[in-house]
Amino acid sequence: MISQAEIKLWVKVQEDKGIPVETVKNRLKNLVIETPSWGYADCGTRFKVYKQVGVPRNPYEKLEDAAEVHRLTGVCPKVAIHIPWDKVDDYSHLKSYANELGLGIGAVNPNLFQDDNFVLGSVCHPREEVRKKAISHILECVEIMKLVGSDVLSLWFADGTNYPGQDHIRKRKRYMLEALSQIYEALPENARMLIEYKFFEPAFYHTDLADWGMSYNYCLKLGERAQVLVDLGHHAQGTNIPHIVALLLDEGKLGGFHFNNRKYADDDLMVGTIDPYELFLVCNELIDGENDPATAECARNITYMIDQCHSIESKIPAMIKSVVNIQTAFAKALLVQRDALRQAQEEGDVIRSESILKDAFETDVRPLLALVREEMGLPQDPLASYLQSEYPKKILERGIGGQGW
Amino acid sequence: MISQAEIKLWVKVQEDKGIPVETVKNRLKNLVIETPSWGYADCGTRFKVYKQVGVPRNPYEKLEDAAEVHRLTGVCPKVAIHIPWDKVDDYSHLKSYANELGLGIGAVNPNLFQDDNFVLGSVCHPREEVRKKAISHILECVEIMKLVGSDVLSLWFADGTNYPGQDHIRKRKRYMLEALSQIYEALPENARMLIEYKFFEPAFYHTDLADWGMSYNYCLKLGERAQVLVDLGHHAQGTNIPHIVALLLDEGKLGGFHFNNRKYADDDLMVGTIDPYELFLVCNELIDGENDPATAECARNITYMIDQCHSIESKIPAMIKSVVNIQTAFAKALLVQRDALRQAQEEGDVIRSESILKDAFETDVRPLLALVREEMGLPQDPLASYLQSEYPKKILERGIGGQGW
Amino acid sequence: MISQAEIKLWVKVQEDKGIPVETVKNRLKNLVIETPSWGYADCGTRFKVYKQVGVPRNPYEKLEDAAEVHRLTGVCPKVAIHIPWDKVDDYSHLKSYANELGLGIGAVNPNLFQDDNFVLGSVCHPREEVRKKAISHILECVEIMKLVGSDVLSLWFADGTNYPGQDHIRKRKRYMLEALSQIYEALPENARMLIEYKFFEPAFYHTDLADWGMSYNYCLKLGERAQVLVDLGHHAQGTNIPHIVALLLDEGKLGGFHFNNRKYADDDLMVGTIDPYELFLVCNELIDGENDPATAECARNITYMIDQCHSIESKIPAMIKSVVNIQTAFAKALLVQRDALRQAQEEGDVIRSESILKDAFETDVRPLLALVREEMGLPQDPLASYLQSEYPKKILERGIGGQGW
Amino acid sequence: MISQAEIKLWVKVQEDKGIPVETVKNRLKNLVIETPSWGYADCGTRFKVYKQVGVPRNPYEKLEDAAEVHRLTGVCPKVAIHIPWDKVDDYSHLKSYANELGLGIGAVNPNLFQDDNFVLGSVCHPREEVRKKAISHILECVEIMKLVGSDVLSLWFADGTNYPGQDHIRKRKRYMLEALSQIYEALPENARMLIEYKFFEPAFYHTDLADWGMSYNYCLKLGERAQVLVDLGHHAQGTNIPHIVALLLDEGKLGGFHFNNRKYADDDLMVGTIDPYELFLVCNELIDGENDPATAECARNITYMIDQCHSIESKIPAMIKSVVNIQTAFAKALLVQRDALRQAQEEGDVIRSESILKDAFETDVRPLLALVREEMGLPQDPLASYLQSEYPKKILERGIGGQGW
Repeated sequence: MISQAEIKLWVKVQEDKGIPVETVKNRLKNLVIETPSWGYADCGTRFKVYKQVGVPRNPYEKLEDAAEVHRLTGVCPKVAIHIPWDKVDDYSHLKSYANELGLGIGAVNPNLFQDDNFVLGSVCHPREEVRKKAISHILECVEIMKLVGSDVLSLWFADGTNYPGQDHIRKRKRYMLEALSQIYEALPENARMLIEYKFFEPAFYHTDLADWGMSYNYCLKLGERAQVLVDLGHHAQGTNIPHIVALLLDEGKLGGFHFNNRKYADDDLMVGTIDPYELFLVCNELIDGENDPATAECARNITYMIDQCHSIESKIPAMIKSVVNIQTAFAKALLVQRDALRQAQEEGDVIRSESILKDAFETDVRPLLALVREEMGLPQDPLASYLQSEYPKKILERGIGGQGW
Repeated sequence: MISQAEIKLWVKVQEDKGIPVETVKNRLKNLVIETPSWGYADCGTRFKVYKQVGVPRNPYEKLEDAAEVHRLTGVCPKVAIHIPWDKVDDYSHLKSYANELGLGIGAVNPNLFQDDNFVLGSVCHPREEVRKKAISHILECVEIMKLVGSDVLSLWFADGTNYPGQDHIRKRKRYMLEALSQIYEALPENARMLIEYKFFEPAFYHTDLADWGMSYNYCLKLGERAQVLVDLGHHAQGTNIPHIVALLLDEGKLGGFHFNNRKYADDDLMVGTIDPYELFLVCNELIDGENDPATAECARNITYMIDQCHSIESKIPAMIKSVVNIQTAFAKALLVQRDALRQAQEEGDVIRSESILKDAFETDVRPLLALVREEMGLPQDPLASYLQSEYPKKILERGIGGQGW
Repeated sequence: MISQAEIKLWVKVQEDKGIPVETVKNRLKNLVIETPSWGYADCGTRFKVYKQVGVPRNPYEKLEDAAEVHRLTGVCPKVAIHIPWDKVDDYSHLKSYANELGLGIGAVNPNLFQDDNFVLGSVCHPREEVRKKAISHILECVEIMKLVGSDVLSLWFADGTNYPGQDHIRKRKRYMLEALSQIYEALPENARMLIEYKFFEPAFYHTDLADWGMSYNYCLKLGERAQVLVDLGHHAQGTNIPHIVALLLDEGKLGGFHFNNRKYADDDLMVGTIDPYELFLVCNELIDGENDPATAECARNITYMIDQCHSIESKIPAMIKSVVNIQTAFAKALLVQRDALRQAQEEGDVIRSESILKDAFETDVRPLLALVREEMGLPQDPLASYLQSEYPKKILERGIGGQGW
Repeated sequence: MISQAEIKLWVKVQEDKGIPVETVKNRLKNLVIETPSWGYADCGTRFKVYKQVGVPRNPYEKLEDAAEVHRLTGVCPKVAIHIPWDKVDDYSHLKSYANELGLGIGAVNPNLFQDDNFVLGSVCHPREEVRKKAISHILECVEIMKLVGSDVLSLWFADGTNYPGQDHIRKRKRYMLEALSQIYEALPENARMLIEYKFFEPAFYHTDLADWGMSYNYCLKLGERAQVLVDLGHHAQGTNIPHIVALLLDEGKLGGFHFNNRKYADDDLMVGTIDPYELFLVCNELIDGENDPATAECARNITYMIDQCHSIESKIPAMIKSVVNIQTAFAKALLVQRDALRQAQEEGDVIRSESILKDAFETDVRPLLALVREEMGLPQDPLASYLQSEYPKKILERGIGGQGW
């Protein structure tokens, strides 16, 4: 527990530095983080999916778990769904069930990597009938978007090859454009299409959408409502993700995030557990983008989603941790003294610039988050509150062997 | 088809250069490559295992497929098995079935990553009862070694953590040593224990055996019959594997290989398909080690195994390709003009040294391998011969849904 | 020496496979590889530049060395220059000197990383006066282009930051666009501007032009005569360069190459010495692009340049090796049986597709290159011929301490 | 400025959690960080060394700058020297000059990469006379150790090759052992030899001492006083350095650190500026090692050195920042609630274990460090204090063109 004395002193110290604490708190209260339905389900590595007791048995139970996370954190009112993992007979019922739980349906994600026909690709497959099948599945998802009230189509393609020569790279590139164009046309008005990219896996030689530049290139050809989705785990080692974020913001093409963390490849660990400073640097670009009139519109429309695979940890606690870690990084980014930073940068003072940014990161924002939660009528420590609640016991009734990937 | 004219001219050209073609052919005829039973079975990525028609339904059918590979290549008389994937009621029957097919059982591989208890590790698990269970499974495999006539215990541990702080690294290190010591004691006389290492996956923060140095360190503590196993896909990007091979040879601690190829992580692609020059450089160190009296004994006892995961390609053809690619790399390594190379190295002539080594790689060794196969009574092109045979049709009867991982 | 018998048989074997050997030879004869003036000069690592005896003392001697490489290889009629390293009083004299040697001046390269003002960047520097100075230097190079008859301006920016927060990434992005736009306007008609990118070094946090997508994005904004330059050593580990090559070709935005090789970072080693298969795969995309009407124009206008840093090897021999290795890779790429490959790809036959491509790589093309050189009136082995010539002795007169970076 | 109220509350909060604040403060007061003489001198990248005004002109001025850093931070009483960069006629005079400044000489570092003879290596060079020269230089450094009162010989070898085949890897390995053995014999009693390793650079194919395992292997052969030196920038991307630290501690073979930070390769940036969490995780292993009787002796004898290359930032401020960042990481590591952590680990509670460790990192330790500095009679903010002092103005008199690498 953080005491009122700590909170009070924290506010005073920040205000003395000139930080507009009220503004900071408001921004934190307005943060919206979308959790993924599949993040509540069993998942694992290629070696083994360890099944957990209490995992949801159907899409409705996934929504219930998501509602619990929202109840405790107050910033997760939306749930991304994945078709066919969340296939139901009546999508309007799914929608109203979500609404009753205080939730809305967020991004709709087609599955383009598990149908037996997709072994060599989906929209880039060498055979036309397979490409058509893939497009048709995505169009089905566009229909589902309308039924569930979603305004984001989130596209990740596992398409690629495992061997040099396996397929013709440029031909596949053209197939991809054909497919995306057709889907873009079908998109509901006001809906956006987010195009994800990934360095590798499951394709091990070339991935048709391998980096931000490839996604971006298609977005340029498609139109305004096509934007890039950045998954923090989908880059080559050493890639400067904040740089990519800044660039896409500047071009108005940053549409969404898949938050998670990684040390090696697409490890899909809880957000902020491996490199919290990188997460802060990403948030720093986002807040900077919100403050700049040239990028504010793009910045304020970004969809923040969590996408992680809990191989060994409890699902709901892991989701809460990730939400809290995202809040922490945003809170710190909101404390950056931007005027002083700008001045030091313009003077070319390397040490001072670095220090000003780092100072915000060094600040312990737990008192701030405690205050924000208090003002929102939420528990100060959402994870502790969850663990002490009845919910973790209640879901044990679901037993083992829930609906996994 | 390679003509006799080509073969003849090839031999003449090499002999004119002073290459002892007979010696080279003999070495190639004596090459022994062990294929893995699981390489004939369904496998895939964490996203999907695409099932193939005709995949073996049980360990016996895996042996039959391995025998077919040996029949066509002549250099694959041994099959590595994996327990419990190859669990049978009567192991002596498995052994005699292999013998009837012209095969022997090679390395025995325990499975320390799929039991529900192993979610946080096997021999390094924080709970003693789990560690005991893991050791007991390995000891069971030692018993199986005796029944099937194997003299190699091949150990890969998926043990590790996903998060900083998740467990105590040094404590786990001591658990590992305790387990290995106990197993080493139980090893049949004349049998060796090969200790594999892996940079990451399925553990995403730390892997208890993460690099050659960690495996080597345990081998030093255990004794002569503990040696390191090098899997070509288990290193950080950029790692110089030939260097590690040379070092382990020099210390008499290189025990075995898992051949495969990768571009990114542990991609488990067919051998020699992504970086054939690296494969050649590895073989170059091995042949150099065979020629050096100080390392010859170690070099000649190395167990060469294939370990790959055929996600999208046909199993038996993929195995044949890998065998042929290994033969190709060894053949080229046997053509290195070592005396000239040594002299150029001693003179510090960078360009000449590099060129002498590269010259061997540039040589097309397909005529040589054709000649070797002819003299061994084998088809010149094992893959073409397989595809034209009845075998690929026959196995279709097995249907789909064979025994995967 | 490769005998006529070998050459003859080689041609016959290829013709029997349906390879149009005459066409292949013609393409090889028409290959143009530009060597860099600075590749003949002393260079090294940050730890030490080891000086060699016989290195050129001025731009004219660099041209003489380049002429020697062209005399022996027949495919290097152009020399890239770097300002101010190749600064002379009279550029038309430099041009006519080159012409007398049988050479032309290729790309002109400004230096934007060694002026004392550029410590925090050149065109992206926070201070306007430094940005202006940088632009002014590039415009000076544009003037030099006219004087030396060059039609390629080759731009590499070392601009970037070493620390998070050091400077404002999006502001620098806008400075870069301002500078490039101004330079593009000044470009001589018919000249192209090639924009290089680099993953890191000398900037260690963010590099303003860090990947192909960033260069490409500027090219799109600038116009048709702005294209991307791919340096083989400027990517993150694992990056699929052939994929990037294919993509840029498909967009008509591939303008040039800096050939070299690397194992770790921007190692600038001799071409084809670390990963010859990757080099072949790059050439395979280039030849495929030449054969496709949709990309042929772009493919045929690519400027092929060598860019390497000979830290420990002799300069001219190293350059010859790199030229020969590029020829080797192109020769192999020309042997790919593209119709068969296309068919196997369309049938989704992974093993066959991979094998068809690899077969071309496995072919020893030294007989082909010997034949091509013979028909061009060149020595069969350019390096041996150089080493036996008087040239390496003659240049010793230049002494030590030549003109380095 | 951090107020007394903040400090007081900080202490109270920690004491309420059961943290022994006195013990923590004492450990921080006893921290010893060695700064490198060359860290005060000009350095840069292979592209350019930007020279700064005010850089030391000789070894004595380097000591003066180091004394200034010690005066302000109170934890840097030792200076590492590098021969011949710090070559003087009278080493006992150098020693007494250091002593007068309140300093002692720390590690002595031979230079094995800048002599013209070392182009192909030093102790691993193919030619015996060069190897002898290298050994003789190291023995000279051993003599200097005696004169300056140093008890640490710090060895970094740039030895390696740039091309496959360039030299014989195993032969070089034996040369290395011969050299190290000879040097070990000559070591002053009670002195230690620290053996560094590096993944790559300046060698670009293989580095003779490429990873911890190679250094460790030699240490085992040499004896107790040979230990491994870990430089935080000398690993492959993704390498888990805390794991290596834990392992070497456990074996009693961790001898020293070169602190710095990197994003890509051996970037030599200020400590803690790129990945502060990794730095904390390293310190966490070190403190854990100090607390464990089995490793305490090794842990308490580790030599902590800074080794960084200030390309664009001011030297003394950069050194102060690094010192402060190391203190910060150690301070946080001292706040880990180890009993609670151990229990959570033993219970296999992934989320709780991770959280306990992370909690310490999240804590803002600036109040603690302010208190420690106050009690040591030091300025609360050493960098601000330096910038306000006369020192930065005074050294401008030295002018430009100081003694660089």
